[in-house]
Amino acid sequence: MLEELKKAVYEANMLLPKYGLVTFTWGNVSGVDREKGLFVIKPSGVPYEDLRWEDMVVVDFDGNKVEGKMNPSSDTPTHAWLYKSWDKIGGVVHTHSSYATSWAQAGRSIPCYGTTHADYYYGEVPCVRCLTGEEIDEAYELNTGKLIVSEFARMDKDPEAVSAVLCKNHGPFAWGKDPVDAVHCAVVLEEVAKMAYRTELIEPRVQPAPQVLQDKHYYRKHGANAYYGQGK
Amino acid sequence: MLEELKKAVYEANMLLPKYGLVTFTWGNVSGVDREKGLFVIKPSGVPYEDLRWEDMVVVDFDGNKVEGKMNPSSDTPTHAWLYKSWDKIGGVVHTHSSYATSWAQAGRSIPCYGTTHADYYYGEVPCVRCLTGEEIDEAYELNTGKLIVSEFARMDKDPEAVSAVLCKNHGPFAWGKDPVDAVHCAVVLEEVAKMAYRTELIEPRVQPAPQVLQDKHYYRKHGANAYYGQGK
Amino acid sequence: MLEELKKAVYEANMLLPKYGLVTFTWGNVSGVDREKGLFVIKPSGVPYEDLRWEDMVVVDFDGNKVEGKMNPSSDTPTHAWLYKSWDKIGGVVHTHSSYATSWAQAGRSIPCYGTTHADYYYGEVPCVRCLTGEEIDEAYELNTGKLIVSEFARMDKDPEAVSAVLCKNHGPFAWGKDPVDAVHCAVVLEEVAKMAYRTELIEPRVQPAPQVLQDKHYYRKHGANAYYGQGK
Amino acid sequence: MLEELKKAVYEANMLLPKYGLVTFTWGNVSGVDREKGLFVIKPSGVPYEDLRWEDMVVVDFDGNKVEGKMNPSSDTPTHAWLYKSWDKIGGVVHTHSSYATSWAQAGRSIPCYGTTHADYYYGEVPCVRCLTGEEIDEAYELNTGKLIVSEFARMDKDPEAVSAVLCKNHGPFAWGKDPVDAVHCAVVLEEVAKMAYRTELIEPRVQPAPQVLQDKHYYRKHGANAYYGQGK
Repeated sequence: MLEELKKAVYEANMLLPKYGLVTFTWGNVSGVDREKGLFVIKPSGVPYEDLRWEDMVVVDFDGNKVEGKMNPSSDTPTHAWLYKSWDKIGGVVHTHSSYATSWAQAGRSIPCYGTTHADYYYGEVPCVRCLTGEEIDEAYELNTGKLIVSEFARMDKDPEAVSAVLCKNHGPFAWGKDPVDAVHCAVVLEEVAKMAYRTELIEPRVQPAPQVLQDKHYYRKHGANAYYGQGK
Repeated sequence: MLEELKKAVYEANMLLPKYGLVTFTWGNVSGVDREKGLFVIKPSGVPYEDLRWEDMVVVDFDGNKVEGKMNPSSDTPTHAWLYKSWDKIGGVVHTHSSYATSWAQAGRSIPCYGTTHADYYYGEVPCVRCLTGEEIDEAYELNTGKLIVSEFARMDKDPEAVSAVLCKNHGPFAWGKDPVDAVHCAVVLEEVAKMAYRTELIEPRVQPAPQVLQDKHYYRKHGANAYYGQGK
Repeated sequence: MLEELKKAVYEANMLLPKYGLVTFTWGNVSGVDREKGLFVIKPSGVPYEDLRWEDMVVVDFDGNKVEGKMNPSSDTPTHAWLYKSWDKIGGVVHTHSSYATSWAQAGRSIPCYGTTHADYYYGEVPCVRCLTGEEIDEAYELNTGKLIVSEFARMDKDPEAVSAVLCKNHGPFAWGKDPVDAVHCAVVLEEVAKMAYRTELIEPRVQPAPQVLQDKHYYRKHGANAYYGQGK
Repeated sequence: MLEELKKAVYEANMLLPKYGLVTFTWGNVSGVDREKGLFVIKPSGVPYEDLRWEDMVVVDFDGNKVEGKMNPSSDTPTHAWLYKSWDKIGGVVHTHSSYATSWAQAGRSIPCYGTTHADYYYGEVPCVRCLTGEEIDEAYELNTGKLIVSEFARMDKDPEAVSAVLCKNHGPFAWGKDPVDAVHCAVVLEEVAKMAYRTELIEPRVQPAPQVLQDKHYYRKHGANAYYGQGK
C-alpha cells in the first residue's frame, strides 16, 4: 500500500543523517497522499541504519495507524494535524537540529537578518509558546500541532511563505510541497539559525534586514515574477 | 577470561572516536559482570587505532587487576567505586568531550533547557566540586568516585534517571545498563551540553524548561507508561 | 565556445562544496576572457552534483547571455560590473559562507586582527551598505556591483590588495587573478571571519594588529620584495 | 642526506591536514639532528597534496640552507633559534590553527581551566607580545624566536613543561621531543584553546583550576612518579 510514497518518505528520512540534522533517532519525516487522505511516516525510535522503506507506517489524518507492523513516530499526531489543517503541504519534518533547537530552547523567534533567510522564509521564523500542563496531559503531540496552526492563523502567517516553526523548549518542525522539500527547509532553517546566532554575537544591536531587501529576495525566488533558477 | 565482555567493552571503546568524543587517548569505557563481581576496562594510554579486544583488562571492585598484560586505565578506581555503589549500572564511560568538559571547567551544572535533555536526563546534569588537596593526595581517582556517589545521595538523585555527571575542572562521566548504552549517554550529554551553551548565548536570561514538559518527555521514554519506540 | 574557460570555471565552482562554502546552490563562480570581453558563469539554481562543464553560460560585460542553454546565475550583473570596472581581476565568486555572511548580516567590516588576515588582505575587509529601495527596484544585482566598485573608489581601496567585500544583510563577494584564485580568496575570507569572531568573544576590547605587522606580512607575500614561497 | 629525518618530518607535516590544523599551506613542521647540528623543515608555500619527502630542506642553526632544491619555510629562522636555544627539543611546529590563533589575536595567554590542559601543559600557555617595528624590520622571523626564548626565560618557564606559545596577532608555535610529538602538542593546544574559549562563554567569572589539581594531573603523566600509560 502506498509503495511509492513509502519509498519517497524513506529516502527523505535518510537525508536527515546525510545533512547532519539528527543524532541517533531524533527526527522523523512524513509525506502525504492527498487523494487518499493518508500519510506515511517513519516508525518510532528505529535507528536510521536499520531503517527500510517497508517499515514506513501509513496513518490517517486523525493519527490512526492504517497499515504497518511498527508503531509510527510518537510525533505522528502533530504531523496529522498539520496535514489536516494546511492542505497545500505535502511533507513534514521534525528534528532536534542543534542551532534551531537552541533558538527554540531560548524561546526566541529567528529574526530575518539577511538574504539567506529571506530567500526561503518571508519574515521571522516564529517560536511558539510551550504547551500548558493541561494541554500536555490531555494530548501532548496533537496539541502541539493545534498550537502551531492556531498561532500561524493568529499571526496571519501563510505556511507556504514561512515553512518552519520553533516549539519553545522543544525544537523545530518544517514542511514543504513534498518530503524532500520539507527536509530541504529543515536544512535551510539550521543554516539560518546558525548565522543568526553568530550575527548577534558579532553585533548585539543588530536589526533585521530592511523590508525592501527581504521582499526583493523572497520574490526573486517565489511567485509570478521569480527569476532565480531555470524556470519550471 | 570474560571474552564476550572484553569484546563488548572493546566495541564500546571504539565508538568513542566514531562519535567524535575523544582526542588521542582521552577516554575509556568499562563494562561489568555482576555475577563474578568483576569489570573489564580499556588499558591506559593505548591509542584507539592500536587497541585490540584482547588488550582489555579485568579488574575487581576494589580496582585490583585480576587479569591482563597491560595497566588498566588510570581512572579505574573511579569506575570501580561506581560499580560497587550502584548495582544497576552495567557500563561506565569517561571522556574529555569538548562541550561537556567546557561546562565542567566552568564549574556549572547543565540546566534542562528542553526536551532533548528531558528525553534522557531527569533534571539538570550536576557538576560536582573539585577534590580537596587532601582527597587528591590520598587517592585521587577513588575519591573522585566516592564524591560522585555521595553527591548523588546528598542531592537525592537516582543514577538511573540522571546517568551522567560533570567533575569540576575535569570532565564528564556517564553510565548505562551496558557499555554501549553508557557511550550513548555520553553522546547525548555532549549534544545537550552544546545546545545549552548556545541557548544561553542566544538568550542570557533563559530559564529551565517547565517541569510539566520535563516530566512529559522523560516519562514518554522511561517507566511503565513509556510509549516512545517499539516496546520491548 | 570558450571551452577551456568553461572547464576552468566548472572546476572552480566544484571547489565550493569541497571547501564547505556552500549549502545547496548558494554560490557561483565566474571567469573572464579579457581578449574577447566575455565571461563564463555557473547557471542559476543548478545543484552542484548535477553540474557539467558544458552547462556554463557565456555572458558579456553588460550581463547579456552570449551562449548557453541555461539561465546564468541571477548574480550575473554583479559579476559583469566588477569585470567591467576592474580590469586586473580574472575570476569572481559569491557565496553565503557561514562566518563571512554572519559579519555581513551584522553589518560590520572584518578588522585585521592578525597575520592570517594580513597575509592576504591589506587592511580590513569592508562591509558596504544595503542598497536603497530605489536601487533595489531599479536593478538589484547591477547596483550591487556598482556599489561595491564605487565604495572601493571612495575608500581608496585597491581591489588587488583587498580582494573581497561583504554586502550588508547579504554576504561576501571575492575575486582573484583567475577563478581558482577567487575561490581561494573566499576560503581565506571564511577562515579570517571565523577567527575574528572568536577573537572578539575572547577579548571584547581587542584592537587591530599593529600596522607594521600588517605591512610586514602583506609584503612578505606580495610585491617586489616578497620572499614567501618558491618564487615564480 | 638525512633521509630518515626527512621522511619523519614529511610524515609529521602530513599530520597537519589530517588533524585539521591547517588551511592551504599555513603550517610547517621541522625536526632536528642534534649530532650534526642540522634540522629539516618543510619548503615554503608548497601545498600538502604536492609535498614529497624529498622536498624537505636541510638547514643549520643559523637558518642557512645546507641542502635542498627549494626554499625552506619562511619561518625557518624562528625554528632555528628555538633549536639553538633549547637543546632538549627535537621537533617544532607552527600553524594558524583556528582557536589557538584566535587567542593569539586576542593577545591573551590560555589559562589552565582543567585537567585536559594540566595533563600536557604546566600552567598557562603564554602569549608573548608583538614585535616592535624595529624588531620586525631588522629580522622578523629570527626575532620572533628570540622573543619566545627570552620571554620563557623571563617568566622562568621550562620549555619541556610548557611546550607551546602564542605569538600576539600571529599564532601558535609548539614543540616536542620529535616532529610527531610537536604536532601532538599542537593538536592538544587547539583542543585546550577551544575548551577555554567555551568555558569563559559559559562562565565569564571562571577561575583557573586549583593548583593541587594541576599538579596532580601534570605529574600523573610526567616525571618520576608518572603512572599514566604503560610505562616505557
